Parts: sequence; C-alpha cells; structure tokens
Amino acid sequence: MENKMTATTEKLDAVLQNVDAHLDTSVSRLFELLRIPSISTQPAHAADCRKAADWMRHELESLGMKADIRDVHWAAPGHPMVVGHDKGTKGKDERPHVLFYGHYDVQPTDPESLWKAPPFDPQLIEEPSGRKVIVARGASDDKGQVMTFLEACRAWKQVTGSLPVKVSVLLEGEEECGGSNLFPFLKANAAELKADVALVCDTSMADRKTPGITTSLRGMIAEEVLIQCASHDLHSGLYGNAASNPIAVLCQALATLRNAEGGVTLPGFYDGIQEPAPATRAQWSKLFPNDQSLLDEAGLSVAAGEKAYSAIEQTWCRPSCEINGISGGYEDEGFKTVLPAKAMAKVSFRLVPGQDPDRIREAFRNHIRAALPSDARVTFTGHGGSPGFEVSRDSRFLAPALKALTDEWGVPAATVGSGGSIPVAGEVRDALGLDALMIGFAQNDDRIHSPNEQYGLDSFHKGIRSWVRVIAALADAG
Amino acid sequence: MENKMTATTEKLDAVLQNVDAHLDTSVSRLFELLRIPSISTQPAHAADCRKAADWMRHELESLGMKADIRDVHWAAPGHPMVVGHDKGTKGKDERPHVLFYGHYDVQPTDPESLWKAPPFDPQLIEEPSGRKVIVARGASDDKGQVMTFLEACRAWKQVTGSLPVKVSVLLEGEEECGGSNLFPFLKANAAELKADVALVCDTSMADRKTPGITTSLRGMIAEEVLIQCASHDLHSGLYGNAASNPIAVLCQALATLRNAEGGVTLPGFYDGIQEPAPATRAQWSKLFPNDQSLLDEAGLSVAAGEKAYSAIEQTWCRPSCEINGISGGYEDEGFKTVLPAKAMAKVSFRLVPGQDPDRIREAFRNHIRAALPSDARVTFTGHGGSPGFEVSRDSRFLAPALKALTDEWGVPAATVGSGGSIPVAGEVRDALGLDALMIGFAQNDDRIHSPNEQYGLDSFHKGIRSWVRVIAALADAG
Repeated sequence: MENKMTATTEKLDAVLQNVDAHLDTSVSRLFELLRIPSISTQPAHAADCRKAADWMRHELESLGMKADIRDVHWAAPGHPMVVGHDKGTKGKDERPHVLFYGHYDVQPTDPESLWKAPPFDPQLIEEPSGRKVIVARGASDDKGQVMTFLEACRAWKQVTGSLPVKVSVLLEGEEECGGSNLFPFLKANAAELKADVALVCDTSMADRKTPGITTSLRGMIAEEVLIQCASHDLHSGLYGNAASNPIAVLCQALATLRNAEGGVTLPGFYDGIQEPAPATRAQWSKLFPNDQSLLDEAGLSVAAGEKAYSAIEQTWCRPSCEINGISGGYEDEGFKTVLPAKAMAKVSFRLVPGQDPDRIREAFRNHIRAALPSDARVTFTGHGGSPGFEVSRDSRFLAPALKALTDEWGVPAATVGSGGSIPVAGEVRDALGLDALMIGFAQNDDRIHSPNEQYGLDSFHKGIRSWVRVIAALADAG
Repeated sequence: MENKMTATTEKLDAVLQNVDAHLDTSVSRLFELLRIPSISTQPAHAADCRKAADWMRHELESLGMKADIRDVHWAAPGHPMVVGHDKGTKGKDERPHVLFYGHYDVQPTDPESLWKAPPFDPQLIEEPSGRKVIVARGASDDKGQVMTFLEACRAWKQVTGSLPVKVSVLLEGEEECGGSNLFPFLKANAAELKADVALVCDTSMADRKTPGITTSLRGMIAEEVLIQCASHDLHSGLYGNAASNPIAVLCQALATLRNAEGGVTLPGFYDGIQEPAPATRAQWSKLFPNDQSLLDEAGLSVAAGEKAYSAIEQTWCRPSCEINGISGGYEDEGFKTVLPAKAMAKVSFRLVPGQDPDRIREAFRNHIRAALPSDARVTFTGHGGSPGFEVSRDSRFLAPALKALTDEWGVPAATVGSGGSIPVAGEVRDALGLDALMIGFAQNDDRIHSPNEQYGLDSFHKGIRSWVRVIAALADAG
C-alpha cells in the first residue's frame, strides 16, 4: 500500500498541471456538447438526444475507452444509454473499479425570451465581479459536470498513459424526463456494470467555497392532472355560475394540499420519516447560520414551507409538494370570457427516505378525486417515481474522497443533503449493490432548469482538478 | 295611424317573399364578412379589424346609406366605429327613428386544433338532423346577427324603395376586448346618434323555438392577476418547500372566492341586488322546467353555482365569478420540475343591476392582496367594467316588437334575461337617453367564444324575416 500511494501521489502534481495547461481545449470540447439541444422530454428533440449520445460515445473512444450506444426498450421515450469501459477494467490487477454516471440530456428552455443568448449557443461571460461563467442550457446540469470527470481522465492518460483506477462510464438520456429505463438497464447489465463504487457528478457544492459529498437525496413522484367538466368551452356569460369551472375545481383541489403551517395535508405523508441526526443539523446550521444565503439567490426573503425547519433543512431532509405548472382557459394577451372545458396542473412531490412513492401517489390521487364535483372528471398521468436515498456512511471510499476535496479547495469538505432527485443513487444500490459517491461542483445560483443556466469556469476547472485528486485517492484506498 | 298601419302591413308579405328568394345571396354576403379575422383583443389583427370596418361601411353604402368610418382615440386598442344613416333620417316626417347597434369584431380562436375547419373559412354544414348551420368564428357573435338586420333593410329597400322607419347604424369593433371607447363616442356624438329607440342584435332566443326580447343583462368586470415570487424560475428540488410558489399562492387566493354553497365570498358582493319578480320567475320556470335543457347542451348534469337558484336564474339574474384563464410554470408535454417565478389568472365577474363595478373590483383586489405571503407581489390589469342592466318595461316599442316576433315564430315571444354582458344597452341609455330592444336569434349551442362557433341557417333566415316584421311594427307604433 505504501509504495502504491507514493507512486500515484508523485504523479498528481504533473496531472494537475496538465489540467491547468489545457483548460481552454477542455472548455472548447464542453462547448461542442452544449451546442446539441438534447431536450429529452420533447419528442421533437429525440434525434438531438441520439446526437448527444453519439458525441459522448466518440468522446469516450477518444479517451481510449471501448464505448458504444445501447438502445433501451422498456419504456418511452427510449433515449439510448452510452456505456464505456477503459482498457483493463476486466483485468485482475488490484486497482479499484469505479462506475461513473452522468446524463447527456437537458431540460426544456422555456421561456426562451428570458435567455440573454440562445440556450444552445454557449457563451463564456465575465461577470462584474471578474468571475467567468459558462452560460448555456446544460452548462451545469449535467453536461459541464460530466465533462469534469472525463477531462480528469484525459489528463491522467495524457501524463501517465493510464488511469490509476479501473473506469467504466454510464451516461443516460432520460434523467430530465422522468424516464424509467435506467433501472431495468442496470439490472439487465448488472454483470457488466458491477464495480467497487459508483461516482455521480450531478450535485452542488456545500456552499460557494466548501466542497461537499451529497449523502442524502430526495426522491420524487410527479403527476399530471387533467380536469374536464363541460364537453366544450362555454361562454362565461351564458353559463357562468351554473356550469362547473375546471380551473376553479383544480384551484380548490390544489389549495388544500398544504395547511397553514406549511405542512402537506395528504394522509400518511410524513409516515416513516426520520428526523436528521443532531450532529448533521449542527453541521448544516454552521454552513447556513440563517435562511438568507439560500433565499437571497432566489430574490426571496422569507422561507415559505414548514415553519419548524430552517430553509436548508426544508430542502435537504424534508419532503415537499410543488405545483410545477398550471394551464387552462385563455392565457394570451387581452381577455376572453371563456368558461373552459378543461384545466391541467403538473404537481410533484420530493420524497425523503422512509416515504413510499406508490402510497403517496395514491394519496394524492385520492385527494384530487375527493375534491371533484359530480360533473368533473379527472385523468392522471404519472411521471417518475423514486424514493428518497441515503448513502451508507460505511463506504471505505467516503473518507479518502472527502480528503481529496479538502486538499483541492483548502476548506474541510462537508457531507450534505440535496433537495434534488437523482434516482441513479438508489438504483445502483438496488441493482448493482454499489454505494454512490455524489460529488458535484454546481452552485445554487447556476439557474439549472431556468433561463441563463450557467456553470462557473471555476467550478469546471477546479472540478476537473478535484476528480484528478479523487481518482488518486480512490486508487490509494483500493 | 290607421292608414299608415295598413300601408306597411300590405307590403309586408312582398318583403318577406323577397327575403326568402334571396337567402343564398344573403348567406354569400355573410360569408365574405366571416372571412375577415377581426379578432379585436389581439394587436396582430388590428388591420383585420379595420378591414372588417371598411367592409361594413361599404355594405351600408350599398344599402343606400351615408356611411363612414370614425377613428376613436379615448383608449387603446382604438378599433374604429362604423356609422351609417339612411336617407331622410334628418327629415321631419313622422317615421320613428331607430339606432341599430352591432359589433364587427370577434373572439380569439384558440384552441385552433379543435376546429373542424379553419375558423375564418365559413362552412354551411348539414347536421344529421337535417338542420343547416353556418360554422365560423363570428357566425353567431355577432356578424351573423348584425347581418339579419341589414339584410332585412335590404329587402325593404328592394321591394319598396325605402324603409318604413328612419335607420341609423352604429357598428363597433371593441365589444369582444372590453374596449372603453364606446361610451365616450356615444357622448361625443349624442346629437347625431339620438333616435327614438335603440335596436341591439347580440342576444339569444328564449329557447330553440321561442323568440325573446332580452330585458335584463349582466354587466362585467374582468381582472388579470399576475403573482410574482422569486426573481427567476427555480429548480423545485433545490428550492421546493422553502421558496414561495406563485401557482400555489394563486390557487389559494382563487379557491376562496366561493363558499361551499356556491356563493361569492367578497364582502358586499350581493349588496343592492333585487330578487327577480315572482311573475318573471314563473315565466322562466315555464320555459325551463328543470336545469337539464341548459346543462345538456354543455354536456353537464348538475348546476354548479348557488344552490338556492335554478340554473337559468343563476345565469339570467344572479352575479357570477369565473376564472377564465390560468397559466404558470411548465405547461408543455412531459414534465419539468420548475418552481416558477410567476403565475397568472384571468378572472371575471358578471354583475346584475344594483352591483357597483368599481366597488367589486376593489373588493376582488383586496381579497387577492390579503392572500399574499410576504414574498409575493401582485400586479392587476383591469379589463372592462359595466354594471348590470334592466330595460324599462314602459317603452312603447316593446309590445309591438314582441307581437312581431310572435307572428314570425308562431309561439308567444318571451321577455328573458341574459347572462352575457352587452354594455351598449346601458350606455345608450346613459349617453343618449334611449331604451334598447335587444332582439337576437342565437341559440345556447351556438358555441360562441368556443371552437366551431355556429349560427343556424334557420336563425339567420327567420332572423331576417323577424326584423322585416319588427321594422314594420315599429313604424306602426311610431
């Protein structure tokens, strides 16, 4: 062990210098990828998703990996997986084997009018503070983050000719559309994808200066609700009062999802949830002594949800209910006195460990059904469905990875929660028996899923350097 | 009087025969007008509105009237008025002088996908029952109805060379967009437009077989409500729970506009309202012995509003509150876990006599303001604003007009209410001191304001014949 540690540590400085020297070409490669509008939820962009997958396959091959595109067929939309294995991953040497996961698909770009530049025309912009940021859809979520790992591999290969760990890569194209092909794909290819640990780069730093490994994630269920009353749109003068209004029905049903204390009212919603450990709460309250640092970035001043929890606790370890979209009647300029036939809402629940996605989906549907007058019909369309997740603290890779991040950033790395839902962490555990180390360099003000999504050039640069160090640390921990 | 009555009555049969003989060319003229997409609420169609005004001016001139287009400048959007006077309206002969009002603008056409043919490509379709209907946006509201009157004038002129009453015509282009130029226009041109009675053709029959004169109308205020919380769209994972959700805020505020009994909750909303007279209620309950005839046409089975009133009472003499549109977050295909920065709703109130539009607008705004959490801001945009209206029963023209309608349809004509808002009736009273006879031939299943708007060929044909008779009756009542 002693010799091996010395051997990789000696090379580390040279690899880090290689990263610094080639940052411009690393950015150029990322820009190529960002130009592909791989919006997975919109059928019109299916060919772009395949184009992004193909770009990724080529990228893995350029790193000396054996890579290919795998069609998936369990559920629509069926955007393909990209799988790559570095040379020697099947070998019998002692190097630990990592499975890196990321996704090449991105969110829709609406409202387009709020983008300062076209969302798929990446820009490197210098902010008034002097900080440089990469602006494009997917810059942070997840193309920029994926490329931090691949560029770290490139640097190791350029300097040493090989990687100190065995590397397999799995990139999916349905992360942003609640696709359900990942888990069956993992199960069907378990023998091939089995490794010693999974690495996931799709999360944020603890704060702007503090690196973090995310050890808990919220799961999610999402539901589209369509309420229909009359057989066709009506004139609100001729029918107003007497005909059921589906927008009003929908508002009534949605307005009672939370109580006055900010809690979700569905029966059994909080069953099975553990409070966070006091030590964890203490660590978080040190990172976020008040709610303002989170809310300021959103232009808000008061935490809206459960009054008994801080804003960071609300997003890292408490389940939520949000209305993500609503639509009905006349939405354009001016006024139209229509009494519409239907109205639609999109509602999602972020879940924490202990909550059962299926039971909560059914409780939500029952809540809506109970609110319907006799002339209203409802149609539900389910999207996604993943439980909350907590990483095992026992992984032998956790401490070395925290140490590597601490070395790069000069600040003790923290274990944090994330309000987002990254189903892969639970799925690699359930399908492959692997712990997942979730290491990411995004910032809360990256505007992911929003117009003008960005990724700091510092996130990208120090992210690559971080992975160079983590790869070395995992090799030593092998 | 005796001689004059005989004189007009003798000619009546010949004029009615002329209507029957030229129905095809009357339909062709209406189709020309229906091809002009004069959607007044959409700025992109401003030129089409002017085109429709010009078509109308030309039509009035072809009837031998002196007609012109008058620009209006009191408020946007400023679609022009068309004014025409038949020869001799300034003369000193004894003929009564009528001012006919209609509008050449139409509602938007969304959702376009539900139209069986393009909305501005009028079709004459034979239904399975054998009834023929004209399908196009504006077929019923109000282009088809306006043309019933003008075609009646044409028939009188073709047969007798003149009209038995003095006729002035006023056609506006802002009826469907809550325009506020009509009243100042009437005031500014009161000397020119003053007549003995106003005729308005923008209402429905009492039922499919019973002609009606509408003697009460609901007024309306309309409000657009924009709720803004965060400074930009947020990721619902990173902010869900902790950030105010403007869709949820909006749903909460709108859900409390009605109570469990279907009543509107705004303080003072029902102040000043008179119950309908027992005789009126009796007449209506004879026309509509149950709610089903109204609801069936909408594909509904249960009246939704105030439980103490029948469906027809709810729409003819009770005020309403309807959400006409709602919008926020991600509304497209698939799912996007956005926590949006803003949400919008369009809400209108139909008012009955006794209610003060300004006070109710303010009560609504206060209701919304009171529902806002501290991080939510609201912007209101007011549309329209007219009180409810009741026609004087004392008009010497009412009974002759009812008699003329009874003669044409073979069923006693009824005095009815209308749930719609036709501000002109109140405005001609207030600006010109005129009673308005509201006579229309629309049916509740005309789908006005909805896809596949239609006007029965029977409505159009017997509507023209009805006006031929009403014109004669008014001449005799002069």
